Amino acid sequence: MASSKMIDLNCDLGESFGSWRMGNDEAILPFVTSVNIACGFHAGDPSTMMKTVALAASHDVHIGAHPGFKDMEGFGRRQMALTPMEVYDLMLYQIGALYACTKAQGVLLHHVKPHGALYNMAAQDNNLAKAIADAVYAFDPNLVLYGLSGSALIAEGEQRGLTVYSEVFADRTYQADGMLIPRTMVNAVITDYDRAFAQALLMATEGKVITADGVNIPIKADTICMHGDNESAIAIAQKVHHALNLSRTP
Amino acid sequence: MASSKMIDLNCDLGESFGSWRMGNDEAILPFVTSVNIACGFHAGDPSTMMKTVALAASHDVHIGAHPGFKDMEGFGRRQMALTPMEVYDLMLYQIGALYACTKAQGVLLHHVKPHGALYNMAAQDNNLAKAIADAVYAFDPNLVLYGLSGSALIAEGEQRGLTVYSEVFADRTYQADGMLIPRTMVNAVITDYDRAFAQALLMATEGKVITADGVNIPIKADTICMHGDNESAIAIAQKVHHALNLSRTP
Amino acid sequence: MASSKMIDLNCDLGESFGSWRMGNDEAILPFVTSVNIACGFHAGDPSTMMKTVALAASHDVHIGAHPGFKDMEGFGRRQMALTPMEVYDLMLYQIGALYACTKAQGVLLHHVKPHGALYNMAAQDNNLAKAIADAVYAFDPNLVLYGLSGSALIAEGEQRGLTVYSEVFADRTYQADGMLIPRTMVNAVITDYDRAFAQALLMATEGKVITADGVNIPIKADTICMHGDNESAIAIAQKVHHALNLSRTP
Amino acid sequence: MASSKMIDLNCDLGESFGSWRMGNDEAILPFVTSVNIACGFHAGDPSTMMKTVALAASHDVHIGAHPGFKDMEGFGRRQMALTPMEVYDLMLYQIGALYACTKAQGVLLHHVKPHGALYNMAAQDNNLAKAIADAVYAFDPNLVLYGLSGSALIAEGEQRGLTVYSEVFADRTYQADGMLIPRTMVNAVITDYDRAFAQALLMATEGKVITADGVNIPIKADTICMHGDNESAIAIAQKVHHALNLSRTP
Repeated sequence: MASSKMIDLNCDLGESFGSWRMGNDEAILPFVTSVNIACGFHAGDPSTMMKTVALAASHDVHIGAHPGFKDMEGFGRRQMALTPMEVYDLMLYQIGALYACTKAQGVLLHHVKPHGALYNMAAQDNNLAKAIADAVYAFDPNLVLYGLSGSALIAEGEQRGLTVYSEVFADRTYQADGMLIPRTMVNAVITDYDRAFAQALLMATEGKVITADGVNIPIKADTICMHGDNESAIAIAQKVHHALNLSRTP
Repeated sequence: MASSKMIDLNCDLGESFGSWRMGNDEAILPFVTSVNIACGFHAGDPSTMMKTVALAASHDVHIGAHPGFKDMEGFGRRQMALTPMEVYDLMLYQIGALYACTKAQGVLLHHVKPHGALYNMAAQDNNLAKAIADAVYAFDPNLVLYGLSGSALIAEGEQRGLTVYSEVFADRTYQADGMLIPRTMVNAVITDYDRAFAQALLMATEGKVITADGVNIPIKADTICMHGDNESAIAIAQKVHHALNLSRTP
Repeated sequence: MASSKMIDLNCDLGESFGSWRMGNDEAILPFVTSVNIACGFHAGDPSTMMKTVALAASHDVHIGAHPGFKDMEGFGRRQMALTPMEVYDLMLYQIGALYACTKAQGVLLHHVKPHGALYNMAAQDNNLAKAIADAVYAFDPNLVLYGLSGSALIAEGEQRGLTVYSEVFADRTYQADGMLIPRTMVNAVITDYDRAFAQALLMATEGKVITADGVNIPIKADTICMHGDNESAIAIAQKVHHALNLSRTP
Repeated sequence: MASSKMIDLNCDLGESFGSWRMGNDEAILPFVTSVNIACGFHAGDPSTMMKTVALAASHDVHIGAHPGFKDMEGFGRRQMALTPMEVYDLMLYQIGALYACTKAQGVLLHHVKPHGALYNMAAQDNNLAKAIADAVYAFDPNLVLYGLSGSALIAEGEQRGLTVYSEVFADRTYQADGMLIPRTMVNAVITDYDRAFAQALLMATEGKVITADGVNIPIKADTICMHGDNESAIAIAQKVHHALNLSRTP
């Protein structure tokens, strides 16, 4: 099977912290084309970041910063009421911290993807989305901004003049308007291995997704989010990677 | 009074944290030629760093990163037993974070000066000193490294090929070997205003200092550390600045 | 002027952190009858807590725990989306930490008052309010729970069987239903010194307040929140304290 | 095999943090008689502490606080230069926090064992040891203090009037003076399963240990430290527990 357009497969990486391990970074790396590395606020620490950049560089994947709220205990998944200015500042801080890890190792920083609650809030809140896009642009206008397909973050990134990657999910169900079914709904997550694989492939090759109501709709899909935290997720990544005959996007 | 060599006057800046204020950044800025901005580990936070960079830029002083141990409660002044690799990593992280604050505001990052216990430990421990010099060099070989005059840090910085600034103190007493009298000694600190001023001037203009024993010895003095935390300290900075007819080093 | 009922005047205390000072604890202490001591999550640290308990004990005021969200940079004033269980757990942790500071000094822990965003969220969210009341009760059913007058927190505290103190503000305006005018409104805060004093007195002696619309309504007022962060606030506390001829409630 | 004296087997517990898991608390619990629960400074958080207390209570083991330096990234294993007063204060804070978790669940707090670098420093530094003993005593004179057999901490605890448990290790080698061979030595750790088991048994039943030089010396052994972080360690704990026919000490 061939794709006229090369899709990106991304994965969150470097989510260990101090003595605590998380994820299986080495197992997922062969099957993704870009990685988002935690920056020490919701996960990661300077030494973990340095090691993760080295590991990612050895697999020749695109390296991105994955900034989040300063909330280690909540893993950056709990909403925090920050002002757009505070978000602008914490984005710059974390992007710079990861940039230093790449600079010292002679590799390029390719993109930025906000993490967790910050990602979700920026998908809907234009002011936060603009703050994030502004921070990325202010640091380096050539950085790619990853955001939820159809979100405010993608709109603000484009508005700012950034290259944006619209992100889709293999294991989440979609509404008729192209937005995700909220996790509070029983049918929000696709647990069936084959169905998740099929959805990823349909998104990647045809830019379409079948909604929870069974309707075939178009969806902007530049990158698919993969997970490395269990064997089943890694298996899906491997299968998608193989089916699409992927290599790192240039 | 004229100096054939322009000396640098530096001051720690941006040591507020969240809602807590520290120092009088605006009062000291007119009288220094370079500032060391805290990077969020022992003081400072992303928003404080952004504001402090803006303030420093408006005074046209050289901007430096001031990384320290991750110990907010101890203000980075308590020794911590980190490995050289851990120190290398935390230096890069903090330098990068502050770099982002300068990059976003279109100003240059000029130097790096370790803070507190890290500064003191690196003055004596060659392995830590080398880790710091390596980190600065890896991020940008054009950055200047500030360290205690006569210290291991200065030696390792030179060895690494960095431009180094040997730092001296107006309000500390010196031994015959050019090292500081330890703070545990009763005569470690010069509290007399005029004597501190005279010492600064002698260091700056003649590269000499009178030891606690009354001997006149040579001392390498590229930059004098000024304090902005009380009116008396600011007055000394003002007087030294005026006497030397200083402007920012090019 | 006499009051048939002794009202409590409370103040937040111990909001310094590490090397950073905040508030003027010694200046406000003579004019309050109870204090709420920060517990190390939004402000304070073990050594600050110990010193603050000692200071409060020397003034013979009631000592309370003042737990908040774990957000030093935001001073606990930024809403965080925690589950009721997480709130229950962080309340216990912080109450216990302050309890140890009182136990070691042989003084009693009298009450608990949530701080900042946690206080405000618990005023409206019954689940959070219940979690807080449950935590206080689980630690010690004899502790008094302070909450906003008319709030969910007061209701849940009473429901749980705790003694509750309804808190009112001298410098905030009230709606016809007895709730505070939100800070987003221009007339939310009373800046006029005499008017704030008059409101405190009316609340304390008659259990009434004049709303922003000029209507005289009843209000439950067991304790008035005083501030120690500026001279004007301390002056109001002094004047109210004197007018009511207060001593510590038994 | 019978022992005239019931020895205690202890294990560190609750060392997870936020979303990060560590150790296998459920696997080791059946084979120990007391546990030391991390208190949120080097590991653990309020929710982890509450769950760990509940788990420990369900196994009817003695519950202790396991306070450490505030250094999550270093897991409390990096020496920090704190004053005895700072150590006194952080001990009280953490003991109180864990006490609240036990109080709310109606179980008893039995002991305190310092963690990591704090444990090691207090074994040699009388001032730190005294600060720790004083803090434990100030909170509750009935708490048992666990410390390294033959250490300054045990001496200061006894001096203070506390019940102390001298701790020994099954998998560490001993010098002729009863102290541990430092970890910097190649023969510091016993990796042989059977030898570790034999050492534990000899310590528990006869109060003796064979030094690295092959000499049989007496050693004070009230509690043996067990590990739950790998299967081999759990197996040793199981075998020792079975051999000694242990139940919880009364």
